[in-house]
Amino acid sequence: MSGKFIVFEGVEGSGKTTQIQQTATWLQSWCSQDKTVIITREPGGTKLGRQIRQLLLDDPHSCVGNRAELLLYGADRAQHVESVIKPQLDRGNIVLCDRFTDSTIAYQGYGRGFDRAEIDKVNQLATGGLHSDLTLWLDLDVTVGLQRVLERGKPDRMEQAALEFHQRVRQGYQELANVYPRIVRIDADRTQAAIQMEIQSILIQTKWF
Amino acid sequence: MSGKFIVFEGVEGSGKTTQIQQTATWLQSWCSQDKTVIITREPGGTKLGRQIRQLLLDDPHSCVGNRAELLLYGADRAQHVESVIKPQLDRGNIVLCDRFTDSTIAYQGYGRGFDRAEIDKVNQLATGGLHSDLTLWLDLDVTVGLQRVLERGKPDRMEQAALEFHQRVRQGYQELANVYPRIVRIDADRTQAAIQMEIQSILIQTKWF
Repeated sequence: MSGKFIVFEGVEGSGKTTQIQQTATWLQSWCSQDKTVIITREPGGTKLGRQIRQLLLDDPHSCVGNRAELLLYGADRAQHVESVIKPQLDRGNIVLCDRFTDSTIAYQGYGRGFDRAEIDKVNQLATGGLHSDLTLWLDLDVTVGLQRVLERGKPDRMEQAALEFHQRVRQGYQELANVYPRIVRIDADRTQAAIQMEIQSILIQTKWF
Repeated sequence: MSGKFIVFEGVEGSGKTTQIQQTATWLQSWCSQDKTVIITREPGGTKLGRQIRQLLLDDPHSCVGNRAELLLYGADRAQHVESVIKPQLDRGNIVLCDRFTDSTIAYQGYGRGFDRAEIDKVNQLATGGLHSDLTLWLDLDVTVGLQRVLERGKPDRMEQAALEFHQRVRQGYQELANVYPRIVRIDADRTQAAIQMEIQSILIQTKWF
């Protein structure tokens, strides 16, 4: 595998979508022309994944159990790794992904209190051991993030969950960042331009491109 | 848990649906009136499961990968165990289920050659360790079974798979039956009445009801 796999993580409203798009535009103009920059996301990075995403996020009255939820995210990820991420990396391309395994640990593990060993098993099974080359964690006070989400319209099921839940999720990201050097914390309580500058600076320092 | 969990297994066309219905009618009239007999199935025993079943079986051009398929069956099973099977068993009821964990081992493991240790992990996660009290395996030569399926109309994705695949599935059931005493083989190449007689005889011998 000769490409690079860069994941964007963070709580709701941390600005991942905007930053991924700006990063892709910048990387594409900056890299050698033989590399393509791909933007993708979880859940919902494949046709199957979009159907699973619908099952998971669209119904506010859903009663999907914890174990079923974990396995559905796993199915989405398995299909995504096999049919999108690995083939693109094999071609030497750069894959920018909105959420990956750390989201499952942060949301299902720290957020919902689901057993970490079982989450790790599902992640291992879904990815076949693939992990990011770099994970950019856009860190933000959860009240600021949730305020941004409320301003942009109707929140989905995940976003409606309590403030406390999102605080546990943030705590999860912090503990993961303490353990894995591939995770870099970025202060997301700044202007979009300032955040994008820092991301570009981090990517330049990798000397990958 | 004070109920009884009875699973029906077998290749396509082995007559599971008919036998489950007849068994339920007979058990309901034969048991004490405080027990209810529930018929359910996998995949598709819950609302979520029916949506998953649609993703898995309805599209003949589907390109769901092996790992995604395994995890989707797991999600279906987790939701089914948590919201249907365990609550019914807790009430002391009798649950008759069309396919359970052995189907995943036979179809995904023996049929598709997926790693058995990984299947066992997903089954364990989905069931929380729950297994059947009795599994009735309706065994049939696969050519006979597939012939029956073709006679009843358009086969779904699983049924279209090759004869060799179904032979491996049958082999899987045989090996499971050799290992687990809870699995009882029933010769399904007989009349419906003869098969039903044997099932009733086996259930009477358990002295559960």
